[in-house]
Amino acid sequence: MKRGLVGLLLFALANLAYAQSDPLRSWNDGPARKAILNFVADVTDEASADFVKPEQRIATFDNDGTLWAEKPIYVEFQFAIDRVKALAPQHPEWKTTPPFNHLLAGDTTAFMAGGDKALLAAVAASHSGMTPEEFEAIVKEWLATAKHPTKHRLYTELVYQPMLELLTYLRANDFKTFIVSGGGVEFMRAFAERTYGVPPDQVVGSQGKLKFEMVNGKPTLMKLPAVQFIDDKDGKPIGIEHHIGRRPIAAFGNSDGDLEMLQWTCASSGARYCLFVHHDDAVREWAYDRHSTVGRLDAGLDAAKASGWTVVSMKNDWKTIFPAE
Amino acid sequence: MKRGLVGLLLFALANLAYAQSDPLRSWNDGPARKAILNFVADVTDEASADFVKPEQRIATFDNDGTLWAEKPIYVEFQFAIDRVKALAPQHPEWKTTPPFNHLLAGDTTAFMAGGDKALLAAVAASHSGMTPEEFEAIVKEWLATAKHPTKHRLYTELVYQPMLELLTYLRANDFKTFIVSGGGVEFMRAFAERTYGVPPDQVVGSQGKLKFEMVNGKPTLMKLPAVQFIDDKDGKPIGIEHHIGRRPIAAFGNSDGDLEMLQWTCASSGARYCLFVHHDDAVREWAYDRHSTVGRLDAGLDAAKASGWTVVSMKNDWKTIFPAE
Repeated sequence: MKRGLVGLLLFALANLAYAQSDPLRSWNDGPARKAILNFVADVTDEASADFVKPEQRIATFDNDGTLWAEKPIYVEFQFAIDRVKALAPQHPEWKTTPPFNHLLAGDTTAFMAGGDKALLAAVAASHSGMTPEEFEAIVKEWLATAKHPTKHRLYTELVYQPMLELLTYLRANDFKTFIVSGGGVEFMRAFAERTYGVPPDQVVGSQGKLKFEMVNGKPTLMKLPAVQFIDDKDGKPIGIEHHIGRRPIAAFGNSDGDLEMLQWTCASSGARYCLFVHHDDAVREWAYDRHSTVGRLDAGLDAAKASGWTVVSMKNDWKTIFPAE
Repeated sequence: MKRGLVGLLLFALANLAYAQSDPLRSWNDGPARKAILNFVADVTDEASADFVKPEQRIATFDNDGTLWAEKPIYVEFQFAIDRVKALAPQHPEWKTTPPFNHLLAGDTTAFMAGGDKALLAAVAASHSGMTPEEFEAIVKEWLATAKHPTKHRLYTELVYQPMLELLTYLRANDFKTFIVSGGGVEFMRAFAERTYGVPPDQVVGSQGKLKFEMVNGKPTLMKLPAVQFIDDKDGKPIGIEHHIGRRPIAAFGNSDGDLEMLQWTCASSGARYCLFVHHDDAVREWAYDRHSTVGRLDAGLDAAKASGWTVVSMKNDWKTIFPAE
């Protein structure tokens, strides 16, 4: 118990030091930064009509394209491809079986032509047939070495420095921060705590089915090749209700897959904050929106304009994109 | 931010005061109390081989029969019955439709003969067709007035005082406490924060399906009369993995429905703690185990003996059962 006390006091002191520095130092002093600071000041001020009690300060963040890079393809998809290649020697039949033969031959076009069915087959092959602990170890090992094809950095280094600061800033103001993403929940949990400071139980994502069984008298969970829940689009507010059980007061996304989450968050009464990260920096990152297959932001861009949500220009609002090497 | 700091310091001081009093004062000084204190001392001592980092100190609690009374019938079932009665004027057809006619006539035997099908029909009628917020308001209103048929107290007063102390004690030692119960997740969330200090996102339970839709331009979630997930028996370790994403190091239950959760918790390496509350106090509460239809504890009692888990005798281990009136 003593340890808990010391920890709390140190935490309070660290917060004091933190409060005296600039909490959003990688954000340019523009409208996006101002809007965030104003919102947080408003909901944390007990004298404000918009004051929100700490336990109701729920903030939800999409992951791909909002917290880390998603180009040229989703990181988890790259993991699935690499995993299929690693497993290929144990599956000689894959050489002639779509979509695995396309993946192994590096024929992305043929693979993509297989649509959702091909994608699900690759995900099933790479994400099931093991325990969650075994899967976690595989993901961690891959993340420790796999490099981005053009940025040549670890994927966990291709996170957005301004968003890391935003997560820290919200938590310092008694927000509980959640990831709510279409990505696989167990894939994200393998790095979310270390990379974002978000513990496993605050990660909401897509889920595969699990089976509980006794194996040689030992209770075991097994990941099955079947989908339990897709946490995307209308699945995001549903996932939030199932998992968090409280409507967020702030939501952060970057694509049309996040639109329902932002609508759900900003439609309730009181001060609410919704933000889209707009990928408009072709020099430092990528520029894409209405016509991209990955991370398309089309209806969301219109909704943001109509609703007065913040649209972050990565080019103009962010001093830096990624953490320093 | 200042408010957060003051809050943290006050919390630290409150903990200091708390640590100087007896954390488990409603527990008799017997083997159960000693086992709990030893376990917590062991996993929180950095010098111990069994030390567990705070972020991995996950404790899961069943609800019915573990945190509050479950006799003569589950509280949520009583809610469903009362709700069906309240809705009956809007459903004249129920007068002649099983299982509603049995419920309205107070014929529990005929209702029970309908088995799971009858139960699901009553749950669907009382738990769907409204938004989660509307449902929460209905449950809160019911809990504020409905009284137990023989104890004549509010259901939220029929919680176990020694277990409330245990929850507080574990949290004071940096445990994150979760409810993992077969009960409906939204039913439990309506009182768990106020009654147990467990926030909505730390309640894992059975779930109905939800639908997201735009109603007059307003995003809305609707509770559907369909089951999404049953968080009981083997569903408990599955629910824990889906929701918490980390294996508990301590688990607390009272019936065979909790057996898989305890097996899953105590099978992993390191210091682990598993406990069954045994209802053996016919005078102050109820005495039931191997042959009860509600809260049967049969295989679990054998497993506890074989595995060296704590079996709490409510009669001998607890000074008081319920909080003072």
